[in-house]
Amino acid sequence: MRIAVDGMGGDHAPKEIVKGCIECINEVDDIDIFLIGQKNLIEKELEKYAFDSTRIKIIHASEIITNEDKPVKAVRRKKDSSMIVGLNLLKERKVEAFISAGNTGALLAGSLFNLGRIKGIDRPAIASVYPTTKGISLLVDAGANAECKARNLLEFGLMGSVYVEKVLGKENPSIGLANIGIEEGKGTQLIKESFELFKKTDLNFCGNAEVRDLPKGIVDVIVCDGFVGNVILKLTEGVAMTIMSMLKEQFTKNFINKIGAAILKGSLKEFKKNLDYTEYGGAPLLGINGAVVKAHGSSNAKAIKNAIKQAKIFVEGEVVQIINREICRIGDENNAE
Amino acid sequence: MRIAVDGMGGDHAPKEIVKGCIECINEVDDIDIFLIGQKNLIEKELEKYAFDSTRIKIIHASEIITNEDKPVKAVRRKKDSSMIVGLNLLKERKVEAFISAGNTGALLAGSLFNLGRIKGIDRPAIASVYPTTKGISLLVDAGANAECKARNLLEFGLMGSVYVEKVLGKENPSIGLANIGIEEGKGTQLIKESFELFKKTDLNFCGNAEVRDLPKGIVDVIVCDGFVGNVILKLTEGVAMTIMSMLKEQFTKNFINKIGAAILKGSLKEFKKNLDYTEYGGAPLLGINGAVVKAHGSSNAKAIKNAIKQAKIFVEGEVVQIINREICRIGDENNAE
Repeated sequence: MRIAVDGMGGDHAPKEIVKGCIECINEVDDIDIFLIGQKNLIEKELEKYAFDSTRIKIIHASEIITNEDKPVKAVRRKKDSSMIVGLNLLKERKVEAFISAGNTGALLAGSLFNLGRIKGIDRPAIASVYPTTKGISLLVDAGANAECKARNLLEFGLMGSVYVEKVLGKENPSIGLANIGIEEGKGTQLIKESFELFKKTDLNFCGNAEVRDLPKGIVDVIVCDGFVGNVILKLTEGVAMTIMSMLKEQFTKNFINKIGAAILKGSLKEFKKNLDYTEYGGAPLLGINGAVVKAHGSSNAKAIKNAIKQAKIFVEGEVVQIINREICRIGDENNAE
Repeated sequence: MRIAVDGMGGDHAPKEIVKGCIECINEVDDIDIFLIGQKNLIEKELEKYAFDSTRIKIIHASEIITNEDKPVKAVRRKKDSSMIVGLNLLKERKVEAFISAGNTGALLAGSLFNLGRIKGIDRPAIASVYPTTKGISLLVDAGANAECKARNLLEFGLMGSVYVEKVLGKENPSIGLANIGIEEGKGTQLIKESFELFKKTDLNFCGNAEVRDLPKGIVDVIVCDGFVGNVILKLTEGVAMTIMSMLKEQFTKNFINKIGAAILKGSLKEFKKNLDYTEYGGAPLLGINGAVVKAHGSSNAKAIKNAIKQAKIFVEGEVVQIINREICRIGDENNAE
């Protein structure tokens, strides 16, 4: 499978991106990589490694879309950026998937402009894994659409469900609306209307998912608008980081505490691993007519490697095609009523 | 000062409520308590203690509003409930403040019906303390209004600011809009419009407050709609609890870990104290024409004691009067433009 990777996107580009590509082809046999970016910089990084050069092809792109760029403007003007060149490779079917750790808004806008939406989907969304004590949930929308209609939330649930089943390998995933209580009728007008729409489908809809219990892994697909989704992701990260740093402070406060902490070191490491995003690959853009995966901005090589592997399953699972089929089916059923 | 306390509200009523009242009068000289509820039950609890009986007066109320009651219906029908009797005491100026650990929605609806709004305030809000590494922030609205207009968020900021200054004792408190990024123009339409309104005032408005950084105590007053506010509170609690239980699991996994944890016991306790709501009293209903404080549903005696002490400062700080004055001033300034 041919997968394109944005060599210039993310905080540690191109170094960690290139390293991640190398690690990926060493681990997985049937992936060939199109690595896009400023040729001299990419080559300089590649020189560090011994690898089968037929499996990584450099595609030169002179420009870079940075995090400071305004998404729509950047997408329109920087036609020779690594991101836009990568999306065009996907559009022209020269590759089967595209991964970028760059500007999220630009990746979303660029994907919309270049690849378009899946027919029947009104609003594509970013789906992010959400680590829980019971494994991972998928959060849709994680930040693409600050304002939504009920129809959009229904689409998010459907797309998330397909992705969890086909890529994360969980059959008949449960779907819940992120809410401040489990009773029907709780929350905003948007949630109440979405609740009604979900009830009419044959999706595995479990009603409202109390946000307090999200870290316990109560549903497989957490559905919410992009503002609330981004709040959930960032606040979870913020609280976890704050608690870890408070603990660290306690654990290094004096000699005896250091001994206690040293004893627990292995366990603390295992615990931290649960919260580590690099384990989980990237965030797929669901609803885009193509397999596009957003890797975390601070991705290291391991995160990039996992994102590429995940993109492969995304393609093999025919997620785009199945979303298209399922959204048509649900639409037909509603029309038949 | 005379303060009314709902003896029947909360998970541990009347036992912990009565105990909290006793502890409070033992600690603070100039508080007399009107303890409202089913006389026989309250008396039975009071019998456990030796105390100055002139300082706690039982007011009989035959009914109880439970957490299962629908707020508006309960408020209309259960006229002789401890909650409604208490609010009426406040309305008739027989007491200067009222505290309840009961049904939040009913307390809000009952306060609106019986006491009304402060003139100039469109929507009263629940203000909750939010524990951070730098002390406490105040979160407004914590859950009273799922849907808001920009004008409401401005009011929340103003009311929160007055409360933090007068009750929590922090001068010129900083105000931030809870958002998924700090740049102006981020977030929902509601937040963008609120941002514009705040900019026109002389409040200490600091712009957007990135939710990831809320646990670090970046602003004194966190402003958001009641849905997002409730998500922030509950998710913070959920993530913290989940991490604590994951740590506990690690710490008791084997003998050597238990030794490590034993060494750190004191530090872990200190750490937990930071997250303990009982330290911080209750959540004031801001914008109501009277000093009403909602104590946590699972309040123990200490939480009740602290809520009563806090209500006293609420009254002494003339929070209601100052909110009225400030909202008029801001209104006048806008009209004068």
